[in-house]
Amino acid sequence: MNKGLFISIEGPDGSGKSTQLKNIIKYFQDKEVRLVFTREPGGTKIGEKIRSIILDRDNMEMTDMTEALLYAAARAQHVEEKIRPSLLEGKTVLCDRYVDSSIAYQGYGRNLGESVSLINDYAISGIKPDVTIFLALEPEVGRNRIKHDDKDRLEIEKADFHQRVYDGYMRLAEEEPDRYQIVDASKDIESVKNDIFRVLDGLGY
Amino acid sequence: MNKGLFISIEGPDGSGKSTQLKNIIKYFQDKEVRLVFTREPGGTKIGEKIRSIILDRDNMEMTDMTEALLYAAARAQHVEEKIRPSLLEGKTVLCDRYVDSSIAYQGYGRNLGESVSLINDYAISGIKPDVTIFLALEPEVGRNRIKHDDKDRLEIEKADFHQRVYDGYMRLAEEEPDRYQIVDASKDIESVKNDIFRVLDGLGY
Repeated sequence: MNKGLFISIEGPDGSGKSTQLKNIIKYFQDKEVRLVFTREPGGTKIGEKIRSIILDRDNMEMTDMTEALLYAAARAQHVEEKIRPSLLEGKTVLCDRYVDSSIAYQGYGRNLGESVSLINDYAISGIKPDVTIFLALEPEVGRNRIKHDDKDRLEIEKADFHQRVYDGYMRLAEEEPDRYQIVDASKDIESVKNDIFRVLDGLGY
Repeated sequence: MNKGLFISIEGPDGSGKSTQLKNIIKYFQDKEVRLVFTREPGGTKIGEKIRSIILDRDNMEMTDMTEALLYAAARAQHVEEKIRPSLLEGKTVLCDRYVDSSIAYQGYGRNLGESVSLINDYAISGIKPDVTIFLALEPEVGRNRIKHDDKDRLEIEKADFHQRVYDGYMRLAEEEPDRYQIVDASKDIESVKNDIFRVLDGLGY
């Protein structure tokens, strides 16, 4: 193929995303796929600097719109510096969170609505995932799984926020059923892994 | 008055903006006006962190859209944390650069066009200057005035960029003649100061 596939993975806190990302990377390594693994916010030197401002607990006075614009700024850099060039080289790009995170967390979670999609249209300039794997887990279940004391600024948000985020993801999945692959993340790790691998097998890898 | 006046000052590099800002601040001090002087990019703790990413010469690979979104992010924080509350307290707000800088530098200078205005509409959420003082100076004249060796990332741009920025400001001034107060910055410092003071006198201070 000339242009590589762009796969994003999304999921609420505690959905086991980090664990499954390792499994996905192993999957591609075993098949000797030329893979670029990256993450948001961040993914570039400039993006990581922006990420550190967003997640810094010292910046609790940050307005919702500032946060949304910072995510979009990091994403614009990420797309032009890393994602678009990698896809054009025929590589598979696996991205831990992408534009759907902004729509779910800022658009739905923080009630910024449509502005988030419109701002991000400028940031991504046409680069949308071919497939988005969503690790679906009711937010309460996910939050009870989180044990670490060092939660970042977003993790310490209230429960109704995380419910809106979850509902936002489900709305996105309804709007784009072809792109969205919903994986039930309440199952055990091995079952979730197998469900994800079935999705990847279906992509022709 | 219940709501204070919002005055922004704009001008290309070398237009004497820093010198004239000192004169304006002195003008308001002498009249015992409750003044909030601030600047962009920056103006808040979060904004200053964003400013340092924007102006860092280490970040030369920054895309134009990333830059525009970072300016907008800093501005959103600035508006909600500082400008809007100060105006509501009846204070006069004097801002060194504001949304017109983004439209001139990113929209016209970097050819990002209308996207910059649309993104910034979200960032400013209705807070526009009542008066914008533009220190008009042909870019060639301005650039010859700059002597320091430690130019930041924006100051080392090429001449045609600065011409587009200048033309952009003049377009904005045509579009909003009531808001724009064009001051001929090619005159000597004292004359420019007197011209600015006449503008401020006309506002009823």
